[in-house]
Amino acid sequence: MKKQKVSSAVIRRLPRYYRHLTDLYLAGVVRISSSALGKSMNLTASQIRQDLSCFGEFGQQGYGYNVESLRDEIAEILGMNQKHTAVILGVGNLGRALMENFHFDRSGFTLTAAFDVDPNLIGKSVSDVQVHPVEELERYLRETSVSVGVLTVPRAAAAPMSERLVAGGVKGIWNFTNAELDMGRSGVVVENVHFADSLLALSYMISEAP
Amino acid sequence: MKKQKVSSAVIRRLPRYYRHLTDLYLAGVVRISSSALGKSMNLTASQIRQDLSCFGEFGQQGYGYNVESLRDEIAEILGMNQKHTAVILGVGNLGRALMENFHFDRSGFTLTAAFDVDPNLIGKSVSDVQVHPVEELERYLRETSVSVGVLTVPRAAAAPMSERLVAGGVKGIWNFTNAELDMGRSGVVVENVHFADSLLALSYMISEAP
Repeated sequence: MKKQKVSSAVIRRLPRYYRHLTDLYLAGVVRISSSALGKSMNLTASQIRQDLSCFGEFGQQGYGYNVESLRDEIAEILGMNQKHTAVILGVGNLGRALMENFHFDRSGFTLTAAFDVDPNLIGKSVSDVQVHPVEELERYLRETSVSVGVLTVPRAAAAPMSERLVAGGVKGIWNFTNAELDMGRSGVVVENVHFADSLLALSYMISEAP
Repeated sequence: MKKQKVSSAVIRRLPRYYRHLTDLYLAGVVRISSSALGKSMNLTASQIRQDLSCFGEFGQQGYGYNVESLRDEIAEILGMNQKHTAVILGVGNLGRALMENFHFDRSGFTLTAAFDVDPNLIGKSVSDVQVHPVEELERYLRETSVSVGVLTVPRAAAAPMSERLVAGGVKGIWNFTNAELDMGRSGVVVENVHFADSLLALSYMISEAP
């Protein structure tokens, strides 16, 4: 399958496709038309055909999509079979919430280690993942292939920790701090989870027109 | 200012405008051209002019935008001055992380109460917000005007708790569970924070073309 230049709007929709197709698959649905898939996702059939055409030929005229194979293709496109690994920096409430409740494996990731400065946490395990002293980060990144660093540190630590991750050779940073990270020319990708942007969008939607 | 039908892509960009304009304002910038604002946000000048034209007339030909007044207008559009209130359901790691570290006030919200089932938490306060027994939710919603319920409960509790919030008259639900909530015809808005979608988008961006 060839991968061409894909717009960020399409990239944002791919995980939703994956989620919906997984639900359909688990519900025992074998095939689905683009219009039915669109209806369940609030997209038009032509939007769906256009999105998926970015990645090659899927589905057949008059038959629709095979749910399982389309799901597998999208998983492949999303890189879910590339054995990505992640480490988490900062085992505060948010870091711990991710370690205890977020299923990294369902997104194709293995969480291999956590790092913190708190002596009370170091050496402990959370959901079978060990918390290391942050001084060991560089050695760990040298000795282990790590795709992504998850930043759940306080805002003030965001910039220095992201620099250490970049120097250590990660490909991406999943940034939960509300700091804007400057990756310069490193080529490292930052994905921000901006809680405030999400709440403000909700604020807009529930507000009366001024 | 009139509010017309605005695309969800524009709504998603508004909080980013607000964030960037706040940074510029705090840095002492008084006015900025649409091209300079665009550059800092990775948007074209015409994109910015088009986005902002949805909400009326801003800026002047040859002068650009007044940073403070544009920021104030966008805050108004986003409903940040409408004294929104929120309650949080579920004081686990994630709920506690939001209570301790997320600045609801900076998004125009006041967090007024939290609810949980854990007897060890009930009656305690986290960041000056009291944790109530969840049995008191209905009475609280009757007696207090609550704009938004924040759902940080386990997935299994997402549907029943969202129904209780809807019955209690909230306008919106900020959903951190990975359950898809069905609001039926209630008119209640759901804003999902889908960690998995975010990580999968990052996975795509760091993956080699298959």
